[in-house]
Amino acid sequence: MTNNTLLENSVLELRRGVIVLAVLSQLDQEQYGYSLLKRLSEQGLELDQGTLYPLLRRLESQGLLKSTWKLEEARPRRYYVISESGRQILSQLKKEWASNTTMMDKMLAG
Amino acid sequence: MTNNTLLENSVLELRRGVIVLAVLSQLDQEQYGYSLLKRLSEQGLELDQGTLYPLLRRLESQGLLKSTWKLEEARPRRYYVISESGRQILSQLKKEWASNTTMMDKMLAG
Repeated sequence: MTNNTLLENSVLELRRGVIVLAVLSQLDQEQYGYSLLKRLSEQGLELDQGTLYPLLRRLESQGLLKSTWKLEEARPRRYYVISESGRQILSQLKKEWASNTTMMDKMLAG
Repeated sequence: MTNNTLLENSVLELRRGVIVLAVLSQLDQEQYGYSLLKRLSEQGLELDQGTLYPLLRRLESQGLLKSTWKLEEARPRRYYVISESGRQILSQLKKEWASNTTMMDKMLAG
């Protein structure tokens, strides 16, 4: 592998680690897939549909999200919002994220 | 899956994302496997040998680490240290980590 590929893989791993946290944090209000993609992108997290849409379905099947179909404009859209169970996980993931960043910041400064 | 399992999986993903960064950052001076495990643990990152040792071999095969055998006490130990190529990757990963945390901190505060 070239250095670029190695770097890209490690960067992807860094990003992958925060995707669930990011998605849960942005679903305090209902979003459909594309509006969520845009919202994440505006905040610096670029995901493609092939990553986000299966993740939304997985998080719903795990009970962390709820979804409802709504008829809008020409076609139905599935809206997702965080569930009570999702809020509990989000709260614990935020704490884990905070302790993870504190640890890494110390390690990288040392 | 229970909420505990879901949480554990997400926590593992968060941790996994930083492992390469953490390992490279701690190999500015030579370490053998067990001394590196202890050093990481002291800083809050608990890895088991079955995770760290294959990773060290992988990073060496990718040219990011160099290793040498040393005869010490009763048995030979393989010491690892970051390579020039590893330093370049580490420098870029640190930047990526910084922008990743800035992004997430904003997202979680918003």
